[in-house]
Amino acid sequence: MESIKVFAPATVANVACGYDVLGFALEGIGDELIITKTESPGLTITDIHGSNHLSKKPEENVITVAAQALIDSLTKKPDFGLQFELTKKVQPGSGLGSSASSSAAAVFGVNQILGEPFSTTELVRFAMEGEKLASGVPHADNVAPSLLGGFVLIRSYNPLDVIPLQFPDELCATVVHPQIEVKTSDAKKMLRQQIELRDAIVQWGNVAGLVSGLAQGDYGLIGRSLQDVIAEPIRGILIPGFAEAKQKSKEAGALGASISGSGPSIFALSQGMKNAQQVAEAFRKLFEDIGLESYVHVSPINAKGTQIIK
Amino acid sequence: MESIKVFAPATVANVACGYDVLGFALEGIGDELIITKTESPGLTITDIHGSNHLSKKPEENVITVAAQALIDSLTKKPDFGLQFELTKKVQPGSGLGSSASSSAAAVFGVNQILGEPFSTTELVRFAMEGEKLASGVPHADNVAPSLLGGFVLIRSYNPLDVIPLQFPDELCATVVHPQIEVKTSDAKKMLRQQIELRDAIVQWGNVAGLVSGLAQGDYGLIGRSLQDVIAEPIRGILIPGFAEAKQKSKEAGALGASISGSGPSIFALSQGMKNAQQVAEAFRKLFEDIGLESYVHVSPINAKGTQIIK
Repeated sequence: MESIKVFAPATVANVACGYDVLGFALEGIGDELIITKTESPGLTITDIHGSNHLSKKPEENVITVAAQALIDSLTKKPDFGLQFELTKKVQPGSGLGSSASSSAAAVFGVNQILGEPFSTTELVRFAMEGEKLASGVPHADNVAPSLLGGFVLIRSYNPLDVIPLQFPDELCATVVHPQIEVKTSDAKKMLRQQIELRDAIVQWGNVAGLVSGLAQGDYGLIGRSLQDVIAEPIRGILIPGFAEAKQKSKEAGALGASISGSGPSIFALSQGMKNAQQVAEAFRKLFEDIGLESYVHVSPINAKGTQIIK
Repeated sequence: MESIKVFAPATVANVACGYDVLGFALEGIGDELIITKTESPGLTITDIHGSNHLSKKPEENVITVAAQALIDSLTKKPDFGLQFELTKKVQPGSGLGSSASSSAAAVFGVNQILGEPFSTTELVRFAMEGEKLASGVPHADNVAPSLLGGFVLIRSYNPLDVIPLQFPDELCATVVHPQIEVKTSDAKKMLRQQIELRDAIVQWGNVAGLVSGLAQGDYGLIGRSLQDVIAEPIRGILIPGFAEAKQKSKEAGALGASISGSGPSIFALSQGMKNAQQVAEAFRKLFEDIGLESYVHVSPINAKGTQIIK
């Protein structure tokens, strides 16, 4: 295999009550990466399409940092080099796991070229090195669903324990990205490091409800559980129109809605594409009324994760 | 129906990471209650077997308080009275939901005598009034599993949302009750009302893992998720031999172990009765070595909940 083209989906992390532990993958939106073998060793980024802000220096881009982490863990190093051509379709700073899509694509593609020395789940820890570069924290709640697809739980970081969750077929997502940028590192700083025990209990009651609703295909329970009393009340303030968007999404038929990642994107979950489309319409109209440009995407939950394309 | 005899099982609440939101029911241990119609209205407790410390005054016993809450919610009041004869087989202060078993038996039996105006799930809120009398807090994580059986999630208290969880057939429990008394109200006071966000995230990652493990029948995941970083480190101190008991239970084949309710009982979960029996032996031996009398019980998860007997 001399060259490979890989698609890694955008993702929604945090998922309301699932702050820092839950994420899911989207269909039809993600980064594309072409990886080509070269004779001279080392990692090179040749082109980045779709963003002007990303560095091509190997130590400054999540692609090469994640790929290097994978290669560093091999006993037998490859005797060839790799060059990368990235097409970004997930906007950096959107809250849709932009850096995670790139990192996932890199480790998945490199693993393929090397003859799959690692399982897809094992790739998560290498992709996390990309996240560390991007946000200062090696979180896994975007890279894991981008790689594995579906709904994914990060039960534990120490040791890393990545759990694919069951979820019902008709579950669909609507995401809206109001065109303002929120940095993950800034949004993380806003959170209090101490929280009320009673709030934490509400949160883990809802996490348990969400996981049970997903497993049992109980859409009503999923909707009732999509609450976040920890991060959303603080981070929602950063997103213009957030409270209205939540309200409108429910009126349009969504099960529930919250902030995607650390924002500014907002996600809603619905039963069926028809409801998800209605929610998309409601989001579009709201941000038009506010006078803020927005990008809206509708998709089923992506069950496949990162894939070779073409 | 002039008279009815009811069995309500003992329960394990908190369930490690599920502090205040999860509980499950045991088989073969619980309170028995005979309820008999009387001509003169009002509620009377005639006998209490198995405990000398419980009041027979209707306003001071959880049975009559829970039953009265049910009757108060009826538009058409019964034109007869009820008398109660209680046989306590769950020791008060054991941490095995002693007051909850009595309350569950009372509301279940009274509902039967009245021709089932309420579903079993609807009875939870009346039984909670018994819990309020017993501990000052109307918690539901013992009464709900005692009434419904199985593993139960209290997703929310406001509004009350009681969710029966899926769980695998071979799941078995071992409980040991070292013969010392810990009051729920005292154990609650010891907990800090503010906790670290990072600890809360660990806890809700584990809750999500436990619910997923139960739903998927993944015993390994159930075991890895049975961790409590919030209540156990503080409450474990109150229970002589707790750390050793946890250690010994795992060596004997348990998936995991933690404090039952607010203690002093300890529960362990295992795959299959054989493992659960081995854990029971380990518990017996440990408390014998410590020189503390202990009561040990082994059972599958009780899927039936409160039942009419005889």
